[in-house]
Amino acid sequence: MKIFTRETIVPTKGNCHIVNVTDIAGKQLEESKLKVGNCTVFIIGSTASVTTIEFEPGLILDFPKLMDKLIPAYSKYFHNDTWGDNNGHSHLRASLVGASVCIPFTDSELMLGTWQQLVLIDFDERPRNRRLVIQLIGE
Amino acid sequence: MKIFTRETIVPTKGNCHIVNVTDIAGKQLEESKLKVGNCTVFIIGSTASVTTIEFEPGLILDFPKLMDKLIPAYSKYFHNDTWGDNNGHSHLRASLVGASVCIPFTDSELMLGTWQQLVLIDFDERPRNRRLVIQLIGE
Amino acid sequence: MKIFTRETIVPTKGNCHIVNVTDIAGKQLEESKLKVGNCTVFIIGSTASVTTIEFEPGLILDFPKLMDKLIPAYSKYFHNDTWGDNNGHSHLRASLVGASVCIPFTDSELMLGTWQQLVLIDFDERPRNRRLVIQLIGE
Repeated sequence: MKIFTRETIVPTKGNCHIVNVTDIAGKQLEESKLKVGNCTVFIIGSTASVTTIEFEPGLILDFPKLMDKLIPAYSKYFHNDTWGDNNGHSHLRASLVGASVCIPFTDSELMLGTWQQLVLIDFDERPRNRRLVIQLIGE
Repeated sequence: MKIFTRETIVPTKGNCHIVNVTDIAGKQLEESKLKVGNCTVFIIGSTASVTTIEFEPGLILDFPKLMDKLIPAYSKYFHNDTWGDNNGHSHLRASLVGASVCIPFTDSELMLGTWQQLVLIDFDERPRNRRLVIQLIGE
Repeated sequence: MKIFTRETIVPTKGNCHIVNVTDIAGKQLEESKLKVGNCTVFIIGSTASVTTIEFEPGLILDFPKLMDKLIPAYSKYFHNDTWGDNNGHSHLRASLVGASVCIPFTDSELMLGTWQQLVLIDFDERPRNRRLVIQLIGE
């Protein structure tokens, strides 16, 4: 059993920008030569998340619209008072959607569905260089 | 340390059908003879999720009602325009609730609470045969 | 590769009490002497969650307020009819936010961001002694 951990910088536009990071994980898996095991995907930082979605133009608009409805950017947040920030909504979205996803792999391939992509969502209100961690444990 | 990965087909009725899959994981753990380790539960596909819930008749009605409130089926979704689909809400629910859960086990038992069951929730708008992956890593 | 699994009792006040448990995981990692691997954080029980958040006074008020908006305590829940309970909202919040988070570690440190803390959130409507599981797999 071996472990491979790698951090990749992913530039984003912020504001609920959804970035398809499936290939980052896939390439790392290929390079690791592992056949069977688990892939942990983790986002460092408190205003972004990782999840899975069908990465197509419609949902890329629908998901931000959903976030605007559930956790509006323009609302009263104590966080903004604390720091003079404007990203209280970004933090709340990140805590709700989550920082990690774990995907098993077999035959050297992630067990994702055909229309299921691994994505990083940046909820912050400005462009960021995100630190995405992919960790493979397997044999 | 060993790895056991198994895919199980779970038939669902769709429309927020919540299926108790605790026994599927429990049986696989028993057969693996592993004593201590981690159980990753992952759902293949972009319109279903896995999570934990107290599996009792009241919550089985409450959770779908919550989803109908937060992410209504009958609303405007760009996804539906893209594909001529009617399941934009299903995708959004799946991305929000999540595709994976990780449960430690010791003494050959999943460390779930007495009233905490592992469930697959199918958000699609039709019956499906779901591909559920259970992966055990341990010794 | 080794596995260390430990259960820690964490007293909470309930009612969306957010407890910073980063140090519990950090101390266990230190004691394990592991350098590289994965840390699974899992909450036993169906009315609490684990996630990451910037643990600061503003967000500690904002997150409960968000929960009150999305899943109000005072509403009609079938769960409450089933058991004569008043915590239907607690269960729904827990299923939505999730029971597990997985955090990679390298150089004997969790790969959390500077303003990203690991938290247990107790959604129940009364104080509880929560059973938090931290499991380390690595070398």
